[in-house]
Amino acid sequence: MLETNLERIRHNLETLSTFNSTPDHGCTRLSFSHEHRRALDFLTEACTSLGMDVVIDPVGNFRARLKGSSLSAPAVMCGSHIDTVLHGGKFDGAAGVVAALEALTVIKEQEVSLRHPLELIAFVEEEGASFGGGLVGSKALVGQYTVKDLMKIVNDEGVSFYEAAKRFGLNPDDLENYVIKKGDVKALIELHIEQGNVLYTKSIPLGVVEAIVGIRQLSVTLTGMANHAGTTPMNLRHDALAAASKLISFVEHCARHEAFDTTVATVGKIHCFPNVTNVIPGKVVFSVDIRDIRDEGISKVEQLIREEVKRISSEYGLQYSISLVGDSKPVKLSEEVISVIQRTAEEIGVKYLKMHSGAGHDSAILTEVTDVGMIFVPSIEGISHAPDENTTFEDLKTGCDVLVNSLVKLAQ
Amino acid sequence: MLETNLERIRHNLETLSTFNSTPDHGCTRLSFSHEHRRALDFLTEACTSLGMDVVIDPVGNFRARLKGSSLSAPAVMCGSHIDTVLHGGKFDGAAGVVAALEALTVIKEQEVSLRHPLELIAFVEEEGASFGGGLVGSKALVGQYTVKDLMKIVNDEGVSFYEAAKRFGLNPDDLENYVIKKGDVKALIELHIEQGNVLYTKSIPLGVVEAIVGIRQLSVTLTGMANHAGTTPMNLRHDALAAASKLISFVEHCARHEAFDTTVATVGKIHCFPNVTNVIPGKVVFSVDIRDIRDEGISKVEQLIREEVKRISSEYGLQYSISLVGDSKPVKLSEEVISVIQRTAEEIGVKYLKMHSGAGHDSAILTEVTDVGMIFVPSIEGISHAPDENTTFEDLKTGCDVLVNSLVKLAQ
Repeated sequence: MLETNLERIRHNLETLSTFNSTPDHGCTRLSFSHEHRRALDFLTEACTSLGMDVVIDPVGNFRARLKGSSLSAPAVMCGSHIDTVLHGGKFDGAAGVVAALEALTVIKEQEVSLRHPLELIAFVEEEGASFGGGLVGSKALVGQYTVKDLMKIVNDEGVSFYEAAKRFGLNPDDLENYVIKKGDVKALIELHIEQGNVLYTKSIPLGVVEAIVGIRQLSVTLTGMANHAGTTPMNLRHDALAAASKLISFVEHCARHEAFDTTVATVGKIHCFPNVTNVIPGKVVFSVDIRDIRDEGISKVEQLIREEVKRISSEYGLQYSISLVGDSKPVKLSEEVISVIQRTAEEIGVKYLKMHSGAGHDSAILTEVTDVGMIFVPSIEGISHAPDENTTFEDLKTGCDVLVNSLVKLAQ
Repeated sequence: MLETNLERIRHNLETLSTFNSTPDHGCTRLSFSHEHRRALDFLTEACTSLGMDVVIDPVGNFRARLKGSSLSAPAVMCGSHIDTVLHGGKFDGAAGVVAALEALTVIKEQEVSLRHPLELIAFVEEEGASFGGGLVGSKALVGQYTVKDLMKIVNDEGVSFYEAAKRFGLNPDDLENYVIKKGDVKALIELHIEQGNVLYTKSIPLGVVEAIVGIRQLSVTLTGMANHAGTTPMNLRHDALAAASKLISFVEHCARHEAFDTTVATVGKIHCFPNVTNVIPGKVVFSVDIRDIRDEGISKVEQLIREEVKRISSEYGLQYSISLVGDSKPVKLSEEVISVIQRTAEEIGVKYLKMHSGAGHDSAILTEVTDVGMIFVPSIEGISHAPDENTTFEDLKTGCDVLVNSLVKLAQ
């Protein structure tokens, strides 16, 4: 079995984390920024020195290829994304890119002969921190986004992704020539931090991801009547916050008791109007985020919430509206790749947990064109998208060991 | 029985409402503003022309006195406040001042001979729109506020009430000489709009106020753990908003079912952190406003809420803190004055409702030194502190008729 190098992993991850526009306040590396450029330069140098062919594609995805013995066999890919949220951590995305670089470095060093080429990929704009929505690099790569779409994706300054890519020195008009189609790639493995506290809580160093959740997001608006908190008797009120509170409790109840073990639902955002101590709230807007690996779980919770919004609004004498803000389907990962990762973990003697991903990933998009697997490493306390995001380098090395040996199996 | 003049009431109220810094956006007449000055000039002219002695006291309360046949008998007062909230209505406060002016005008016109002097009062800074807290004029008048206190009451620009009064041409240092003590005044009747929807909903034109509620305000902070809405299973969450929602529902439940018919409790303000759709709320701060005419009602609800905050915080694994933001005691009005107002309404043939005031008033402060009664007139739809605040002039005239004849009874 091949073994990766903890110190090199640490060094490369720490180096990537210096390409950061908010030092001392978490890690911020936005797409097409100076920090993004420096990260690409670092990866280019590292991959070139391994004798790999490097391409930065028309939208900014970094792709580096290590030749296999067959000239025609499709590549086995590995990697993750290179961008971060604002004031995020240094592991989200970067851990998977560093793991892929480490895997290829070990394979090159050990002169492992493989039939299939190996490809490292660092996706652009996964987080959506600059252009909203996210997963732009992977969606462009599989042809979900055309050049026209890229012109419509706009950042806060009104600059399109298309224009920003051009200013970065890329040629987005050439996108079509870089799109991956079915058969072009044999498989993809993405290593990523879990961003949750399941592995950490159970003290298990490795997660083998079976599915990536679908996400449905609603915005609920309740409109009652703002009125004096002292002069309006309880029975003459149309209190939008009292009604919203019953609904927020109901959202939690549904996720816990009305669907599956895998269903989660969250009200993360609430705005109350006029939001004054002595005025009965006249309007409340709140978000609902429902996730599951089974579409039935999402649909059932959504349906129950819609019915309850109607019922509670009627009870309180409120107007209501519900709008669908986001919707992505659950995705199953490849049984073949999952079984390779499991077998590898067992051979190395690493305890693992078969689990699902509650967050979206580029990997979900790639399932459209190839067999995909994901490896999770534990997030300490489950913290992510925050400066305190952390993973032990021992756990990251364990993930890298499983990754490199899984890649070897798939590329043989 | 004396009868007041609807057209004169309308004219005077409309005239007062032109002293307004936000025409077309509700009525705004802040203490010590140009509009306040014009309103005082209008009242001074009106009262002087009735042969009354006018004084603007050291803090800005307008007081005008119509002599009685006795030189030593204490005065019977009537009036309300002259300031407004920002973008408020034209009836809140002004209705009571205009009603008092109308009552004195009719008494003068009809040459009604009374033993006691009558006094019109227009309190300054009842709303607290400029200096926060409110009831400054009445508190100063009964000696609750000293000159030193007035120096500590500061507006948003950092100017003290004391300094602002000086700039307005007053001499606040002379306050002590104008303070009212027990025995100085025989009685006070304040006519005010209800600011609630009880009279309007029941189609009753007059409210006879028996008590003014006490108000206890709490601020509750719940601190859990902000975390990823997708990757954190339901059973590993410390969701501050899910917990807050249960408590907000409980506040409503307590007011409806655990105390008295007169108890109301409101959560009007909520702040959620970080307040992002896909992040489990880590912290929520919300207000609780509890009111009742019985202190036991307030204390019982407060106690139940405190216990439930503790219980729910423990259930959700949260830290909590509760701070007391405001506290005023319930006040009972004078049975003698109440009975005079009732008797008058019955004699005139006006249907009335004995009720309490859910809002605070200068009248509550004056109970410390004299017998106080309040007359409510209906607020259309219960709307107040808003440009749409409205009362029919027919209802306001009915209130004035009851007021003038009640004053005559008290001053004979």
